[in-house]
Amino acid sequence: MNQRVFSGMRPTGQLHLGHLAGALTNWIKLQDGYDCFYSIVDWHALMSDYADSSKIESNCREVLIDWLSSGLDPEKCVIFVQSHVPQHAELHLALSMVTPLGWLQRCPTYKEQIINIQNKDLSNYAFLGYPVLMAADILLYKAGIVPVGEDQSAHLEIAREMVRRFNGFFGEVLVEPQIMLTPTPKVPGTDGKKMSKSYGNSINLADSPEDVWNKLRTMVTDPAREKRTDPGDPEKCPVWDIHKVFNNSDSEKAEIAEGCRTAGIGCVDCKKKLKVHVERVMNPIREKRAYYEKNPDLLGDILREGAVKAGAVARKTMDEVVAALGFVRRG
Amino acid sequence: MNQRVFSGMRPTGQLHLGHLAGALTNWIKLQDGYDCFYSIVDWHALMSDYADSSKIESNCREVLIDWLSSGLDPEKCVIFVQSHVPQHAELHLALSMVTPLGWLQRCPTYKEQIINIQNKDLSNYAFLGYPVLMAADILLYKAGIVPVGEDQSAHLEIAREMVRRFNGFFGEVLVEPQIMLTPTPKVPGTDGKKMSKSYGNSINLADSPEDVWNKLRTMVTDPAREKRTDPGDPEKCPVWDIHKVFNNSDSEKAEIAEGCRTAGIGCVDCKKKLKVHVERVMNPIREKRAYYEKNPDLLGDILREGAVKAGAVARKTMDEVVAALGFVRRG
Ligand code: SF4
Ligand code: SF4
Repeated sequence: MNQRVFSGMRPTGQLHLGHLAGALTNWIKLQDGYDCFYSIVDWHALMSDYADSSKIESNCREVLIDWLSSGLDPEKCVIFVQSHVPQHAELHLALSMVTPLGWLQRCPTYKEQIINIQNKDLSNYAFLGYPVLMAADILLYKAGIVPVGEDQSAHLEIAREMVRRFNGFFGEVLVEPQIMLTPTPKVPGTDGKKMSKSYGNSINLADSPEDVWNKLRTMVTDPAREKRTDPGDPEKCPVWDIHKVFNNSDSEKAEIAEGCRTAGIGCVDCKKKLKVHVERVMNPIREKRAYYEKNPDLLGDILREGAVKAGAVARKTMDEVVAALGFVRRG
Repeated sequence: MNQRVFSGMRPTGQLHLGHLAGALTNWIKLQDGYDCFYSIVDWHALMSDYADSSKIESNCREVLIDWLSSGLDPEKCVIFVQSHVPQHAELHLALSMVTPLGWLQRCPTYKEQIINIQNKDLSNYAFLGYPVLMAADILLYKAGIVPVGEDQSAHLEIAREMVRRFNGFFGEVLVEPQIMLTPTPKVPGTDGKKMSKSYGNSINLADSPEDVWNKLRTMVTDPAREKRTDPGDPEKCPVWDIHKVFNNSDSEKAEIAEGCRTAGIGCVDCKKKLKVHVERVMNPIREKRAYYEKNPDLLGDILREGAVKAGAVARKTMDEVVAALGFVRRG
């Protein structure tokens, strides 16, 4: 297994604690031991937001600042915007030649999203080919490892099948990526549902301490604790889920759980304790964010350098692909 | 209407008299009055030949030599290989975002080919998107005029609809191409059916005088002329169709038609007269062909220069497209 890692995130806006606890923490760990390529996949964002793409540029900027502030280090990993490397589109086209329509039509996430997403018209050619573009992203870097959540594993499986089919026709050029399932701790939003920008229940990495506290303060708790004197059950409380992720003191957590069950601690106190831990995590992120916001030129430099590094690998792969396809050599 | 022309040909092998009388003659005329971009569209060839792409490179070479030998002049028009300009793949990806699946599924040529072409598996993602790639080819150069045969006009119509839809979402970036229907004189093959490589009935531009004569000699004629003394009807004879295209002497044609109807001329003599005219057209083509075969480096130079010229226009368009999409600026 090679040590190249690829992963991407769609630029849909500010990232939140759910992203941090899931993908981002994992990515930050990986950058120390692996050869990591992390991409802001703007083509993928356009796929669902083509009817109003006016936010894509600012969303890319937000995602980049959130990545850097959280600890992704451009000295340790390659950070770039997908559309800055034209080979993504080229490999997408090459792969599309050998992708049976049935693979795409039967893809479970495709069928699911066509049914579930009613406020956007997704019946376009690109959306059907989502897994083709995702495969191109990964295969362009010959990544051996792709950290993904459970929900993306069907796409990874298609990417692996594409490699087998492409190499079967054209020779051993592409590399079958292995799935590295990202542990994704449960991070509920303020309403108790999964934290998500689209639910409007998220605590964002860019939130001020006041915003964070306002959100925690009004966050739903175990509904059994109507009054301060009612005992609760932490396992039924979304605040407790966040304690489990961000509270690094086992003794304090034991005290809180005990206090909740015996009505020995009030929910506001419980949340104040949580706030301390969330702030411990968020404060350094905020400091770095302020730094990058004061030095916006750095952002452009990082993306430029990332595109150069990613482009060098991508060009090499595409040269091999084009040779395998039997095309006339360029230049 | 702007004066930019785009047209392409799939590299499927040696060209024949049908190509010369149809597209090529028209292209050669256009290069004197228009700003012409002519592309060897290798991605399109891969779309149907992915199961065995081993001939694509040599086919590209054949097509290029046939173009140059017939009179396309790299000083007057831009000649290039599609895959050498990566922006084709990028615009293809961008257009795919705004192309409703229904447009592609309802495309008459798609339905027709899926039914008619039984010896190749065409149920892949790329083949469904054929009109998307074809639109990208044209729109990348903002061509105002696209010379096509009747059979391609449905694709052109889709390209025009794509422009309206894309510009509707993202602003006036792309240009609606106008169809210039190419007059395509009837050029039957040696068996009387439409001349086509796949029927094995073609007289190729690379054929030697001996090959040409052997093909003409054995070519079917009006079946009524079983014996030399049977009168014939030129309008029922494929040899006569070729006279109409390549014989430039009206008086000779009048004589032949009269002689055929009265059994005053034999078919062999008729064919010998045709041979003279075909050779008059083919001899200069052969001479140039010999020149390019002796100077293969020239071919590489021409394609390199073509890719540079086409690439400059393509990059400009893609920069505008990417800005309109609202992506982060590159570099
Ligand atoms: S004390 Fe804490 S864990 Fe218990 S219900 Fe209240 S907020 Fe939830
Ligand atoms: S004389 Fe010429 S035109 Fe008439 S049938 Fe023979 S080949 Fe055909």
